[in-house]
Amino acid sequence: MDKLVHFNVTEQGLTAEFQFSDFSEAWGFMSKVALCAERLQHHPEWSNSYNVVRINLITYEAGTTITHKDYELALLIEGMYKEA
Amino acid sequence: MDKLVHFNVTEQGLTAEFQFSDFSEAWGFMSKVALCAERLQHHPEWSNSYNVVRINLITYEAGTTITHKDYELALLIEGMYKEA
Amino acid sequence: MDKLVHFNVTEQGLTAEFQFSDFSEAWGFMSKVALCAERLQHHPEWSNSYNVVRINLITYEAGTTITHKDYELALLIEGMYKEA
Amino acid sequence: MDKLVHFNVTEQGLTAEFQFSDFSEAWGFMSKVALCAERLQHHPEWSNSYNVVRINLITYEAGTTITHKDYELALLIEGMYKEA
Repeated sequence: MDKLVHFNVTEQGLTAEFQFSDFSEAWGFMSKVALCAERLQHHPEWSNSYNVVRINLITYEAGTTITHKDYELALLIEGMYKEA
Repeated sequence: MDKLVHFNVTEQGLTAEFQFSDFSEAWGFMSKVALCAERLQHHPEWSNSYNVVRINLITYEAGTTITHKDYELALLIEGMYKEA
Repeated sequence: MDKLVHFNVTEQGLTAEFQFSDFSEAWGFMSKVALCAERLQHHPEWSNSYNVVRINLITYEAGTTITHKDYELALLIEGMYKEA
Repeated sequence: MDKLVHFNVTEQGLTAEFQFSDFSEAWGFMSKVALCAERLQHHPEWSNSYNVVRINLITYEAGTTITHKDYELALLIEGMYKEA
């Protein structure tokens, strides 16, 4: 069963919330997102509380607007969650 | 040179903000905090934006109050940052 | 589709090899195993090369023999891989 | 006090062994190395046993020889350990 989460366009950026069974699963996901962000050299604003991970993507270097960098990272993160 | 950060008692819980030179250093710190939290089975509310990590500690199982579990984890996190 | 890997009893300890699609997936798995090992306070001997993770479990404190601690961690790791 | 470790040229590649106070410190270091490897898209062969991390760097795509990619990653890893 696939788990689908899509980022939404908000005033803060592209935002999404991801749910997991526990902290370990949430942390495994975050560890993959961290690698991806470092590879792209584009890092999220994100928070975690036990089994929940909230991510906001925005490009500061472009006047705090949503750019193609945010969409690229968003798609990769959605794909990682789907397979998680 | 030691880096000292102390958690503060707030209405939300024990809170602190930690600064690093870049995302990699922030993530290395978070990876150690994650292990510690899992060992204690007491997990933080926390957020990260590039080189900054904000942590809030509170005990939901005790009516969302600050308990000895929060103080124990806070001290261990302060120690990890000092040596980071 | 479940992915089944079982640890084998060898002269070195309980050993198993886990395959992933890439480094990111291997690292996400390792990040969950690390949390689990720290929680149990029983740590693996393990190696990684891109998409492959090899794990050996043995108890040094018991004369370098296989103990229930190794079996406990092995079962938890097998479960994490199955769901990965 | 700086901690200096230098990679050695061996028949297997560039190799080095890093010592830490415990598993948590070793894992924090590995988490930073993983980010760096993913950013460079050049990944180590490495193993961990509690507080020890052994790393071997070699380039498979260049006939399993040592290339500038290995030297680049080696220098970055030495720097991370020095500051750890």
